[in-house]
Amino acid sequence: MASHRYCVIMCGGVGSRFWPYSRENRPKQFIDFLGTGRSLLQMSYDRILPIVPKENIVVVTNEKYAHLIREQLPDISPSNILLEPARRNTAPCIAWAAYHIAALDPEASMIVTPSDHLITNENVFTECVVRGFDFVESHDALLTLGITPVRPETGYGYIQIGQEVEPGILKVKTFTEKPNLELAKVFLESGEFFWNSGIFLWKASSIIEALHRYDSDLTALFDKGKGCFGTPAETDFIENNFPSCPANSIDYAVMEKADNVYVECVSFGWNDLGTWSALYDNSPKNRDANVTQNCQILTYESTGNIFAVREDKLVVVHGLKDYIVADAGDVLLVCPKSEEQRIKQMVNDVKLAYEDKYL
Amino acid sequence: MASHRYCVIMCGGVGSRFWPYSRENRPKQFIDFLGTGRSLLQMSYDRILPIVPKENIVVVTNEKYAHLIREQLPDISPSNILLEPARRNTAPCIAWAAYHIAALDPEASMIVTPSDHLITNENVFTECVVRGFDFVESHDALLTLGITPVRPETGYGYIQIGQEVEPGILKVKTFTEKPNLELAKVFLESGEFFWNSGIFLWKASSIIEALHRYDSDLTALFDKGKGCFGTPAETDFIENNFPSCPANSIDYAVMEKADNVYVECVSFGWNDLGTWSALYDNSPKNRDANVTQNCQILTYESTGNIFAVREDKLVVVHGLKDYIVADAGDVLLVCPKSEEQRIKQMVNDVKLAYEDKYL
Repeated sequence: MASHRYCVIMCGGVGSRFWPYSRENRPKQFIDFLGTGRSLLQMSYDRILPIVPKENIVVVTNEKYAHLIREQLPDISPSNILLEPARRNTAPCIAWAAYHIAALDPEASMIVTPSDHLITNENVFTECVVRGFDFVESHDALLTLGITPVRPETGYGYIQIGQEVEPGILKVKTFTEKPNLELAKVFLESGEFFWNSGIFLWKASSIIEALHRYDSDLTALFDKGKGCFGTPAETDFIENNFPSCPANSIDYAVMEKADNVYVECVSFGWNDLGTWSALYDNSPKNRDANVTQNCQILTYESTGNIFAVREDKLVVVHGLKDYIVADAGDVLLVCPKSEEQRIKQMVNDVKLAYEDKYL
Repeated sequence: MASHRYCVIMCGGVGSRFWPYSRENRPKQFIDFLGTGRSLLQMSYDRILPIVPKENIVVVTNEKYAHLIREQLPDISPSNILLEPARRNTAPCIAWAAYHIAALDPEASMIVTPSDHLITNENVFTECVVRGFDFVESHDALLTLGITPVRPETGYGYIQIGQEVEPGILKVKTFTEKPNLELAKVFLESGEFFWNSGIFLWKASSIIEALHRYDSDLTALFDKGKGCFGTPAETDFIENNFPSCPANSIDYAVMEKADNVYVECVSFGWNDLGTWSALYDNSPKNRDANVTQNCQILTYESTGNIFAVREDKLVVVHGLKDYIVADAGDVLLVCPKSEEQRIKQMVNDVKLAYEDKYL
């Protein structure tokens, strides 16, 4: 019996917070970030394979990364690679994937997952995702995975839980913005708040219905393509219409508005690797508490640094404490970890000064 | 009338204090350190050309740099390039050059100069060197150029002056080691101490005679080659005998012992560029007091740094103060300027860990 379970791997991000280690022509998700021999995208793919057959795994990415997908995931059929002609954030991406999958299989349920997160306990992940599929297949529900917080993190959005409807699955009371440290501590102690992972499960029909209700402009656009999805005409339709979608996140378009939103509370060693500091915190450290990505280092009176350098380079450092040192061949970045939120501004400054040369 | 004035450019150093910008296969003197389009060696050559005809300019270097000399000084005849088969410091280098030149021209006088110093006022340099030649040609004198100090520098040796014998030329009372800061201040105020530039003038016959008196082991070795110098047999003789010379400096072998040592007191904007800090002090600075060598930089809250990077690399730095950032493609060094004396140790550590790969 063919599985009705699908996976959508969102893979179009540029990872500019990791510039210059992550570059526009090879963003974060395509990099072997942990030195394991597998990129974050490949790890995301490997992780879902025990749950969803590879024929049902769909990758959505920007068309400029098509060759990287083919290179890194050679087992994925070209028809399962959805190439966005423009960046429009997660709502249009997910809408397209849902229309595509629903056309192939009206009974489809699906997990939607970023391609650049770290998950350390894959067995627990599998259990949680299976339980999530079971739930959404028996309810008209939009389910999000909420990560049990382990520290008062100020870098994530939180989900406040409501009433439990099944063991481990609860109504969502509210989504909250990133809190300040004081509030994050309150969240952590309360036991009522979970990290918003950006991993979702639902039936394709459920999310399409929710999109119709809460973002009818978007569905009006996709409804024009009825009959195209899953056929050779799909590519042309998308090429002509996708760029007209307003950029919007699925959280803002649907999750924060719908009333059938649930959270499955999970603990499987998750980190969104959204920042250098997060990567530092989640990487093995040497005896001087330095972290290296793909490089040789020799350090003197230097601790708490993260070195992300292309292979076969030797980095010799004296007297650096808690810095990011990222070398990408033609660009070198040296910046305190505490100032990493300014890297986006630096990338803008570089763009102003040198156009696309170093992006 | 053919000139009897010769120049010996010593060009065999490895420049390890500037590692990794200076590498064993392309030391400091071969690098366009000031971004002028001419290497320090080429600038040394250009500077002496108005005084000494190119036929009389001799370059002494290690045999591994022969191709770099040919590349950078194509006008120098191969017979004017003396290739040392081993590194033996300045005394054997100068002895060989003196024997070589004396064989070609018994009346020769010569200036001996390092190839990796900076001299900013070339007109004054020319005047001083001509006056020095005039002096040594009329005296049996070993003349060294003493630089009028402009700051209490602790990185140089000093020369204490004695009696003036001609305007601007004085007997040397003593050579001194590098002083501490307190003593350097006393030196500066006294007006009696000058920086030891390592630039010498003498007749070839005078230095050979002094070597006979003060380092007879060395001259015994070179005297065995009588008849070879300036002939095709010279190469074989040097190949077989030069490595037997003990390593020794000309200062220790002769200058600190001889009694016919004079100093010409000069001021022509000299710096030995012996350290990153010296290079920093002598380079033009941008508005944040950063110095760049061959690179694009974008700095934030960063001052007093020196960036030495191969061309076409962009360096983006936040929160670095008074650091050296040197990138040589396969090696990156980040080190406070105040710790630069430890770079030699780092190079040793790199050698222990990786052999010659990164030297």
